[in-house]
Amino acid sequence: MPNRRSVYFVSDRTGITAEALGNSLLTQFDTFEFKKTTIPFVDSMELADRAVAQINATAQSDQNRPIVISSIVDEAISARIRECNARVLDFFQVFISPLEQEFGMKSAHAAGRSHGLRNSQEYFSRIEAINFTLAHDDGQSTKELSRAQVILVGVSRCGKTPTSLYLGLQCGIRCANFPLTPDDFERGALPQSLMPHRDKLFGLTIAPDRLAAIRNERRPNSQYSSPEQCRDEVLAAERLMEASNIQMLNTSTRSIEELATTILLQRGLDRHIF
Amino acid sequence: MPNRRSVYFVSDRTGITAEALGNSLLTQFDTFEFKKTTIPFVDSMELADRAVAQINATAQSDQNRPIVISSIVDEAISARIRECNARVLDFFQVFISPLEQEFGMKSAHAAGRSHGLRNSQEYFSRIEAINFTLAHDDGQSTKELSRAQVILVGVSRCGKTPTSLYLGLQCGIRCANFPLTPDDFERGALPQSLMPHRDKLFGLTIAPDRLAAIRNERRPNSQYSSPEQCRDEVLAAERLMEASNIQMLNTSTRSIEELATTILLQRGLDRHIF
Repeated sequence: MPNRRSVYFVSDRTGITAEALGNSLLTQFDTFEFKKTTIPFVDSMELADRAVAQINATAQSDQNRPIVISSIVDEAISARIRECNARVLDFFQVFISPLEQEFGMKSAHAAGRSHGLRNSQEYFSRIEAINFTLAHDDGQSTKELSRAQVILVGVSRCGKTPTSLYLGLQCGIRCANFPLTPDDFERGALPQSLMPHRDKLFGLTIAPDRLAAIRNERRPNSQYSSPEQCRDEVLAAERLMEASNIQMLNTSTRSIEELATTILLQRGLDRHIF
Repeated sequence: MPNRRSVYFVSDRTGITAEALGNSLLTQFDTFEFKKTTIPFVDSMELADRAVAQINATAQSDQNRPIVISSIVDEAISARIRECNARVLDFFQVFISPLEQEFGMKSAHAAGRSHGLRNSQEYFSRIEAINFTLAHDDGQSTKELSRAQVILVGVSRCGKTPTSLYLGLQCGIRCANFPLTPDDFERGALPQSLMPHRDKLFGLTIAPDRLAAIRNERRPNSQYSSPEQCRDEVLAAERLMEASNIQMLNTSTRSIEELATTILLQRGLDRHIF
């Protein structure tokens, strides 16, 4: 396999940013098959030596040298990593100098400031958003809907729960979600408990065949997952949301990240990235 | 305020990677106050023009030119953004050439491959991990514990739920969590339903005063949040976990990302980053 390449993500902290950056670059080379390994928490020369040994061993066994995408704040540790037998791209080292130049000052060069525990207030507000989102999943509670920053509505399994959890966990947004059911369609009206919060509603919809596929994973060959039921529910939900002037987003071809980003953008909410 | 700078994260997709990268760099300049704005989905020349106009207006009203951290795959759109009156760092454009050189080929230069919907199988397995984690939060269900990849245990409010959700949502890991309660401490034994899954248990612990602070946010001035109760529970839980040979991690000074990364590392689990 000539197009197989080993990739290491090396970081002095979690490696999450290095992975995100690296993956967004590697997806551009889709004829390759990448074997990815993350080496996090490389914050001493000893751990750097160990990472270099691991990478060099791979370089010896592979036909090609590995790629290393790294994010190391400490210059000595970064220099040690760059000595390995690999193509090393350290985004921190590449970008920090132009920023130092722009700001007219040296950077703190202190590790652990990203994806670390910055302060208690930030932690508490993140936890609060997660708890709020969990307590208000799938219409479980309506007590505190007035504290929601956004309330997602849509048919069962259209993507409300994953999107809500993402908004809570990754953006610190208090997001409730509430199902629209055949009962609501028969009455031709939104659930009563949502009426005081109409300005916070945001609709999710989905292609009926995709909904059927998703429901079928959960309850195979049921009425619930039948193409007819899915089509009827989606049509009725879209009609109800249109009549209620609720902004709608189709989840069929969008990732959770794209859904969350679009909702924040359209609602003018700030993402507090963690 | 001379140390106030405007920062724009500009992306042809969600902007999540640009934000993560930018924030990890900006935290190194802590004497500055940054006003951050994300402009996602800039995937046409028209939207590029609009972003440039917004950035240039800020450049005029600010004392200093803005910083732009961008991730734009299309070369023409990226070139247009770089013409604005700001210090522009486009990580995609900076890193893609060395990778093209290394791989001996041009990249696809196709947007939307990261944080997008790659394929249905990936989507389903992510959703399955989220559903599993939700269904097995706080010991709610023990039916499918054998399918868990890891089971977090610890006292109430030590950080099990946020860590589990992160592992499910961001890493695609089926993570259950189960509370250790005064009942267990009295019996001096792990909950019975965990016994068949001892090899999957991972302990979380916490400093008693931090636990008291967290519980106090939820139930102020209660027995549950009293310093004595917190100290007794933490001590008893640590003793029980030690006696049961359960690996332990202290959550007091670690972010959710650091906890999740450490658990994956120590368990040899792969993070499937989304």
